[in-house]
Amino acid sequence: MTRGFYIGRFQPFHEGHHAMVERISEEVDELVVGIGSADQSHTVRNPFTAGERIMMITKTLVEFDLVTYAVPIEDLNRNSVWVSHVQSMSPQFDVAYSNNPLVVRLFEEAGIEVRQSPMYQREEFEGTEVRERMARHGDWETLVPDAVAEVIDEIDGADRIQQITATDANGANGNGDPADE
Amino acid sequence: MTRGFYIGRFQPFHEGHHAMVERISEEVDELVVGIGSADQSHTVRNPFTAGERIMMITKTLVEFDLVTYAVPIEDLNRNSVWVSHVQSMSPQFDVAYSNNPLVVRLFEEAGIEVRQSPMYQREEFEGTEVRERMARHGDWETLVPDAVAEVIDEIDGADRIQQITATDANGANGNGDPADE
Amino acid sequence: MTRGFYIGRFQPFHEGHHAMVERISEEVDELVVGIGSADQSHTVRNPFTAGERIMMITKTLVEFDLVTYAVPIEDLNRNSVWVSHVQSMSPQFDVAYSNNPLVVRLFEEAGIEVRQSPMYQREEFEGTEVRERMARHGDWETLVPDAVAEVIDEIDGADRIQQITATDANGANGNGDPADE
Amino acid sequence: MTRGFYIGRFQPFHEGHHAMVERISEEVDELVVGIGSADQSHTVRNPFTAGERIMMITKTLVEFDLVTYAVPIEDLNRNSVWVSHVQSMSPQFDVAYSNNPLVVRLFEEAGIEVRQSPMYQREEFEGTEVRERMARHGDWETLVPDAVAEVIDEIDGADRIQQITATDANGANGNGDPADE
Amino acid sequence: MTRGFYIGRFQPFHEGHHAMVERISEEVDELVVGIGSADQSHTVRNPFTAGERIMMITKTLVEFDLVTYAVPIEDLNRNSVWVSHVQSMSPQFDVAYSNNPLVVRLFEEAGIEVRQSPMYQREEFEGTEVRERMARHGDWETLVPDAVAEVIDEIDGADRIQQITATDANGANGNGDPADE
Amino acid sequence: MTRGFYIGRFQPFHEGHHAMVERISEEVDELVVGIGSADQSHTVRNPFTAGERIMMITKTLVEFDLVTYAVPIEDLNRNSVWVSHVQSMSPQFDVAYSNNPLVVRLFEEAGIEVRQSPMYQREEFEGTEVRERMARHGDWETLVPDAVAEVIDEIDGADRIQQITATDANGANGNGDPADE
Repeated sequence: MTRGFYIGRFQPFHEGHHAMVERISEEVDELVVGIGSADQSHTVRNPFTAGERIMMITKTLVEFDLVTYAVPIEDLNRNSVWVSHVQSMSPQFDVAYSNNPLVVRLFEEAGIEVRQSPMYQREEFEGTEVRERMARHGDWETLVPDAVAEVIDEIDGADRIQQITATDANGANGNGDPADE
Repeated sequence: MTRGFYIGRFQPFHEGHHAMVERISEEVDELVVGIGSADQSHTVRNPFTAGERIMMITKTLVEFDLVTYAVPIEDLNRNSVWVSHVQSMSPQFDVAYSNNPLVVRLFEEAGIEVRQSPMYQREEFEGTEVRERMARHGDWETLVPDAVAEVIDEIDGADRIQQITATDANGANGNGDPADE
Repeated sequence: MTRGFYIGRFQPFHEGHHAMVERISEEVDELVVGIGSADQSHTVRNPFTAGERIMMITKTLVEFDLVTYAVPIEDLNRNSVWVSHVQSMSPQFDVAYSNNPLVVRLFEEAGIEVRQSPMYQREEFEGTEVRERMARHGDWETLVPDAVAEVIDEIDGADRIQQITATDANGANGNGDPADE
Repeated sequence: MTRGFYIGRFQPFHEGHHAMVERISEEVDELVVGIGSADQSHTVRNPFTAGERIMMITKTLVEFDLVTYAVPIEDLNRNSVWVSHVQSMSPQFDVAYSNNPLVVRLFEEAGIEVRQSPMYQREEFEGTEVRERMARHGDWETLVPDAVAEVIDEIDGADRIQQITATDANGANGNGDPADE
Repeated sequence: MTRGFYIGRFQPFHEGHHAMVERISEEVDELVVGIGSADQSHTVRNPFTAGERIMMITKTLVEFDLVTYAVPIEDLNRNSVWVSHVQSMSPQFDVAYSNNPLVVRLFEEAGIEVRQSPMYQREEFEGTEVRERMARHGDWETLVPDAVAEVIDEIDGADRIQQITATDANGANGNGDPADE
Repeated sequence: MTRGFYIGRFQPFHEGHHAMVERISEEVDELVVGIGSADQSHTVRNPFTAGERIMMITKTLVEFDLVTYAVPIEDLNRNSVWVSHVQSMSPQFDVAYSNNPLVVRLFEEAGIEVRQSPMYQREEFEGTEVRERMARHGDWETLVPDAVAEVIDEIDGADRIQQITATDANGANGNGDPADE
């Protein structure tokens, strides 16, 4: 039995992530999906809560013949203990998947196997693209799995991003701090 | 579709919890199992990590015909924001299950429906009992579902509790602080 | 112009505190009332939120011919920076009032004048007494100013304490942690 | 009786804020002035401590025929619990005033009435303008109420901003971190 | 070259610790002395600041022909990341010394060699004894190295403990929280 | 006996710092070297852990005829309590050395003597220069003391910076947050 670990912020979970999971599913029996920055929400970069992201991921991954765990990981803001933190919040795993050089470095320094793929490079680009399309009322639905689009519609997610982006345009609150001037 | 929320520390998940979930499963279509004090581990009262508890719960609940989510909830140590914290970490839910008067109070003040049952009273008693039997090499296996016993065996859980309990007996470190005298 | 600083938890603000303010009011022109453990609420020892305590204090002190400031002070859990923390949250003050030996020590080590009075000794006793009478449906109203009794009635405060106390009796949650067994 | 809640950082409290309070005072009987980022001070963006800002606000608002509460609100850095945090630190309020889209969004998601006004748009602009004039020895006094100018003079506030701005020019410490290279 | 790691709270550093270092010095070339609960001070159990404890340890250990590092370790209150935290704050070490079963467990789970000795059992006992003698004006000087007694005298340490103990006797503040009733 | 305090991040400790210590050593008998942002590591701006920096400083300063203490100082992110925090973590000192205007301001507001020197201006520049040379495989060794180069080689430090810098180039993770898209 092999269990993999795949970390992301999933703001939101999009087709790039979906393709990644598809690929990983060929290599493992079980997959832990670690939801990073779980304590963040309602900002331009992190619009959705951990609970909302759990929904997106769970609803999308039911189609896979793969036992999956969606696990929120709160930020500790200490890179030196990040691997231990992840390990304590997650079911034990054998191999980690990431293309983020910092994540790769931290896992490697801790002696954990990491597998990379050029494919991951789509991820960052696509996440930003989805959020920007949402903000300017563009077509974002085609960039995410259907189940994710449904979750976002239910929680009025595009509307939230549009309103939060307005905050930034004002310059009032670029980093998502509710205390305005 | 009704989704319920059931909070506990699950140190470990035992037959009392199992019976509770059985009962709740008659009333809801989906169940979120909130794992409280998710940041605590390796103490007499909280021996297991969040990841280990996710394993126990997920392995046990596969038998139920019920969509379940096991969601770790870290302590914020501020009762006044606890309900909001739980809501942000969990898929949206319609009704909460608890017999803990503080939890009931907090949910009620926030206008969320809470269902209680005398049955929950077993919980606290059984959790302590399981841990004490583990500590003194007693028969704890009969108090937990088989899947939980397997997880605990795999991670050498009884051994961990025995060692941690020794800390307390020394008086060195009753509250699980690794800095001894 | 002399400004005094008087720190307490005010759970709730009672006649002992009231008498203290009366006495201090003879010595200062303005008084800062620092509300300690402002981040705590809904526990047996700290039942009321900072906002509720601000109401109690402000409503009671309008009768005094004294400029008063009710300032919540959150716990930092580091005694070594406590005086600096208090100074940054409070309007500048000339003298502190306390009978708590730790507070006296911390202010003295920081070179700030502290005035003590045997009278303060009533405070701890009375706070516990008020909360216990609330918990067992006793006569607590006579131990607090009328304005405080009104605030507590409005927020259903006695009921909250009774419910929280039940938590403790169960042994489920003595330190006010909402995650039960 | 209607109580309003008005949140800002008030770094410092300026004529824009003053005009806002004037307008709000026509609609409410009591006003809570929430001082955001209360834990921040001595940075270019947040030069003044919570205590200093309490002084500015209290001294200015005595002129109004309005019961006011100046309440420091520390950052929790979790938008999802921000409304609960504010509610626990503040006397209970009926309506919130803000033009910050994030604040509006958070209050609306929590079901709290928010009133906006084009007037608020002055706020962010004016705060930055006041701090920049202070930094370059310009005429900032005309942009703030007289009582605020007095408080700032007493604490040597312009001098503090000039010194902190020097930090930034060095590039040593743009975000107010005292650990230089 | 072998470097050892020895963790304690050192409140204060006493003859039991001294004997331990003597023994360890026979086995290693360099020794890191980790000062636990470095963020705590001015309580009955943790009277001295990290800086004061650094002084005690450094002044005492100059006599040894051993390179030593006195490193304060702040509490993170998460056992699962404790080893990583210690490793990031300390120069790299080959072997840890402790008799605290929790510490032994945590290091062992992380695959780090730990050496124990019955001798360590003196530690907890002696720390409590020294503090109690200080509190009741007894002869504590004979239980600590001369250099430690000098540091404590300079900072008026016995006086601090006596004053803090008075707090506890009052019942006002048993856990070192400066907010009294 | 005079003890000085010199604060920096020392990422890494370079010749500019070395020259500063040389100069300070003429004025004091003992020197505390405060290692700022001790909790940060594995980022472009803060690549090395506190433990690694302790090694660099201790190995370099053995050559001086000066008692030195290398003390990690974790960020509290509250400027108003920063001086108290530093004082509690450090052996007591008589004079602070810094050219960072914010540090100067904070010490001055607390009534502590600060000595500045134009020489300090090299520091920020040199720190950035060393890290950039490491990132692009340039000659960084000549900018740091030999002992520092050895420590960095042992921990594969240049390699770490190169890998972390890759993270930034991807835009994935500019502020050192391991949760990628």
